[in-house]
Amino acid sequence: MCGIVGYTGQDQVKDILIDGLKRLEYRGYDSAGVALEHDDDQRIDVFRRVGKVSELASAVDAIDHPSTCGIGHTRWATHGTPSVANAHPHTGCDERIAIVHNGIIENFAELRTELEARGHRFSSDTDSEVLAHLIEEAYYGCNGSDGSHDLLASVRAACERVVGAYGLAVVCADEPGMIAVARKDSPIIVGHGERGSYVASDVIALIEATRDVVVLEDGQYALLTPEGISFTDQSGNAIEPALTHIDWDIDTAEKGGYPDFMLKEICEQPRVVRDTLVGRLSGTGEIDIDELGLTYEELDLIDRVYVIACGTSFHAGLIAKNLIEAWARIPCEVEAASEFRYRNPIITPTTLVVAVSQSGETADTLAAIRDARIKGAKVFGITNVVGSPVARESDGVIYTKANKEIAVASTKSFIGQVVSLTLLALLLAQVKGKLTTGQIRMLFHEVGDTAEQIQRILDTQSEAIHEAALACRDAQSALFVGRGMGAAIANEGALKLKEISYLHAEAYAAGEMKHGPIALIDPGFPVIAVTTKSPVYDKVVSNLKECEARGAKIVVVATEGDEDIKRIADHVIYIPVVRDLLSPITATVPLQLLAREVAVIRGCDVDQPRNLAKSVTVE
Amino acid sequence: MCGIVGYTGQDQVKDILIDGLKRLEYRGYDSAGVALEHDDDQRIDVFRRVGKVSELASAVDAIDHPSTCGIGHTRWATHGTPSVANAHPHTGCDERIAIVHNGIIENFAELRTELEARGHRFSSDTDSEVLAHLIEEAYYGCNGSDGSHDLLASVRAACERVVGAYGLAVVCADEPGMIAVARKDSPIIVGHGERGSYVASDVIALIEATRDVVVLEDGQYALLTPEGISFTDQSGNAIEPALTHIDWDIDTAEKGGYPDFMLKEICEQPRVVRDTLVGRLSGTGEIDIDELGLTYEELDLIDRVYVIACGTSFHAGLIAKNLIEAWARIPCEVEAASEFRYRNPIITPTTLVVAVSQSGETADTLAAIRDARIKGAKVFGITNVVGSPVARESDGVIYTKANKEIAVASTKSFIGQVVSLTLLALLLAQVKGKLTTGQIRMLFHEVGDTAEQIQRILDTQSEAIHEAALACRDAQSALFVGRGMGAAIANEGALKLKEISYLHAEAYAAGEMKHGPIALIDPGFPVIAVTTKSPVYDKVVSNLKECEARGAKIVVVATEGDEDIKRIADHVIYIPVVRDLLSPITATVPLQLLAREVAVIRGCDVDQPRNLAKSVTVE
Repeated sequence: MCGIVGYTGQDQVKDILIDGLKRLEYRGYDSAGVALEHDDDQRIDVFRRVGKVSELASAVDAIDHPSTCGIGHTRWATHGTPSVANAHPHTGCDERIAIVHNGIIENFAELRTELEARGHRFSSDTDSEVLAHLIEEAYYGCNGSDGSHDLLASVRAACERVVGAYGLAVVCADEPGMIAVARKDSPIIVGHGERGSYVASDVIALIEATRDVVVLEDGQYALLTPEGISFTDQSGNAIEPALTHIDWDIDTAEKGGYPDFMLKEICEQPRVVRDTLVGRLSGTGEIDIDELGLTYEELDLIDRVYVIACGTSFHAGLIAKNLIEAWARIPCEVEAASEFRYRNPIITPTTLVVAVSQSGETADTLAAIRDARIKGAKVFGITNVVGSPVARESDGVIYTKANKEIAVASTKSFIGQVVSLTLLALLLAQVKGKLTTGQIRMLFHEVGDTAEQIQRILDTQSEAIHEAALACRDAQSALFVGRGMGAAIANEGALKLKEISYLHAEAYAAGEMKHGPIALIDPGFPVIAVTTKSPVYDKVVSNLKECEARGAKIVVVATEGDEDIKRIADHVIYIPVVRDLLSPITATVPLQLLAREVAVIRGCDVDQPRNLAKSVTVE
Repeated sequence: MCGIVGYTGQDQVKDILIDGLKRLEYRGYDSAGVALEHDDDQRIDVFRRVGKVSELASAVDAIDHPSTCGIGHTRWATHGTPSVANAHPHTGCDERIAIVHNGIIENFAELRTELEARGHRFSSDTDSEVLAHLIEEAYYGCNGSDGSHDLLASVRAACERVVGAYGLAVVCADEPGMIAVARKDSPIIVGHGERGSYVASDVIALIEATRDVVVLEDGQYALLTPEGISFTDQSGNAIEPALTHIDWDIDTAEKGGYPDFMLKEICEQPRVVRDTLVGRLSGTGEIDIDELGLTYEELDLIDRVYVIACGTSFHAGLIAKNLIEAWARIPCEVEAASEFRYRNPIITPTTLVVAVSQSGETADTLAAIRDARIKGAKVFGITNVVGSPVARESDGVIYTKANKEIAVASTKSFIGQVVSLTLLALLLAQVKGKLTTGQIRMLFHEVGDTAEQIQRILDTQSEAIHEAALACRDAQSALFVGRGMGAAIANEGALKLKEISYLHAEAYAAGEMKHGPIALIDPGFPVIAVTTKSPVYDKVVSNLKECEARGAKIVVVATEGDEDIKRIADHVIYIPVVRDLLSPITATVPLQLLAREVAVIRGCDVDQPRNLAKSVTVE
């Protein structure tokens, strides 16, 4: 998630923007920039830097002409590598319009083609830049046609052209002191304080200036001037949105009102699903990976897949194995990067190595893909960081669109990885001709449906999860079990619990319980099971009965409507009906919440578990 | 291990033999038999039955002619299926000589060919039968040549011809009241009591009759008569072996003097290694699997291997994966049978499915191989039970020669499985031409050397293991770590500890620790690591340093001579130098002993852990 700030008022804007951007730094960034209006000569200066906000601050600090209106941005690349050219603000051809944008413009490619045909010159690889040109054209006209010379009307006109999500702030050299703002599916907050008007994508950036704000709704627009803010709807009619009073402290504000980043990030997962899918299904029903880097001919030759990853990403790999084998019928093996790199794995030019790493800089994973490439394998990366080493050193890449993840225990990146790997599996099945276009389209839409399903879990299961967490609170250790996809989900559930609650949880394929682990079970021992409806449902239930007979406390993640499961389960967390192969996208969520809840109850630091680092850049 | 009993004296022998055989039942059997001399007419009657000793007892019970001299046997097939024909006693052509034999005759095939050429007719598939014919020939002569008519001299002559191991008891219709006994590498105990003379392969069978016994040494012979026992050496010179007084109770006697079966079975492992290798290397240096069931042409086509197993056998599979990929360069995947059977794995006619099961009747494993065969795969079994379902339903089989395992937690069968899978990996490498005959011979002999290495661990590391166990006693849970082969070993170590001490131990590839599990570590948390010398030694040590820094209590299995490791390890258990790929055969042994020691210290029932069954014949 990128960050937007903007101000128009009595004070010098540059310090306010830098302050705001620094407050947004916790959200992650790879570049930052500001657009400052000259108070005296109707010009806009744009300053952009790759790296830390402090570097931008040094550049901006040197400016000595007065400027009391401007916008700023921190970027976390999801499209185009981190570079000065790709950093915001973006301007139109004549640099009279500058914009900052959060979100994704899905139809940017066709809009760009259209704009270029009319003579617009683009200076970045971003989707965002089309907005600057669309607004420019609407305001100033194009090829002799007259523009509206109405900034907010021009923004509305641009927004009507785009498909996608946007939080948008716009300044115009010919409208001094004015900032136009728009929102759809990407947060925008505005507020007027004693010394001017403010806009930001996150309350943290304006909380010091004003605590009475308007949280824009989709389709609402605002026009900021030093004196106040006016609001209109999509048709341009004036509206009066309600004020919201923010009484969060800074710490709470950073967490978007959530008690911790982990919960915030768990709750972002519906968006991650949607963003990761954006633009991935072509009009003709084919999977479309723009950073594919491999020809279909090369992909068609692939006869073996290795998924290489560590920790949570490894579990995403376990899920991918099932999808790739089921859909594309290519043998797929998942291996911990630290193991893979030190043995002599069997790799040929028709082997595809899929490297999964949130940070894209995991040392073992990087070393593994380097080895694999030397041995002639094709390498495909799944990562959350655009331009990261994994992305750079792979033939192709899918970005997980999770945006910066702050909690050490990975949640939303995991979901992003699973969705990305699902796309890869569908692509392989498509290239190999194992699924029809119709099947792919159906599966793609079912993946999309999980966004809403996750939201339903978030909205309805808190109480059940809290009760289950209480039951685990005093345990010395726990087992997570499932079969098939459920076994993969159990692995991730156990890791989450271990990481943040320090409760020793181990995952087992349920059918293996009788071959040893069941010896651990005595009365009250927690067994957490994935018992969603699937071809192995009955088998899991019968394994659970053996645990129940030994007095285990049984917590299950089950499918809505399954009342029978209550006969053996002490606690049931329900998830909506979902295809078995896609169940990890939803069924993992209650286990993330369960782990967090146990950690909270046990008084652990949810976001910063002891001994762990966010990304492991050493071996 | 089969069982031998024999008696000559004043009492009716049939009840004494049946009693003795029943005492040996705990050692496992698939058939049993007795040979009874007629007191009145110089004949021998042989009675044999497949199944329980009680069935043999019913048959013998009906006999009403007097008999005061005879021998009996319970068989656990390691060669030839369980059948009446293969049950002992075996006789020569004329049924005047009857023998019972424990052990393996390595050169039986050539001896049988030779004997058949001289007119001997064989009635079983066993290696043992050659002994009966050799003794018959020595005693009665052959094709006109005169025999010695000296039973003990005939036994000596036969023993001089055979290569292998034997515990042997022989009766002859023309030497009433006389039992000749011989031993090499297979236990034989004799004793004279008030009512006659006794022989058995296990002290349990004669402890009720006499507690003063002679434990024969290799190359010693004994001749039993109702009045007493005389002893000779290989040259026929009289000797006077020392008496041993047995003060064990019945329970201890069953355990061969060990406090539990698990320890007894751990200590049998050097023999298991040797027996599993017997006859597996041809004179020309090639791996020779007599129950191969697949042609070399079929094996050469194999392009993917699945090892399917459960529990401990699954861990043997993890080791096999490394060997097969390293030596034969065939991609190999290991999967829990309960998972494999319920998904739709990618199987072709060039897939080899290797099913590993101690009992040969594990339900999930059986179901998995049936599915695999339907899909056209070749199936190879690794099992401890001759003629078991896994053996019958596989194309080929290697028997682990562990003999009956009584402790629920598998130890010696695991070692037998690893050795068998090592043979399979060597065979595949041989067929694929990836290793030279010289390399195979060298590796084969290195596998053989592990028998002695295990013995050295058993002889020297008890104290270190006890100290390490004390350190784990009060832990709530533990982690087992290693890399490469060490990771596979760690898996088995953790399972053993879980199974019998109920201490929740989990195994992790050491390189994965930083990706989550290290959060569990607080001061005193036990981390058990495999740090044997290998290419990844330094990496494991550096992972351990991170654990040490967080206060973990560190126990390591290290290579003799590694003094440096003491700097970070609280407890070091040493094993002899061994090639990394073969290290599981030795390095697992200290972890078996550690698990047992922790269980003993925690007061657990080592042989019969709660909730577990010896073989899992349900899903």
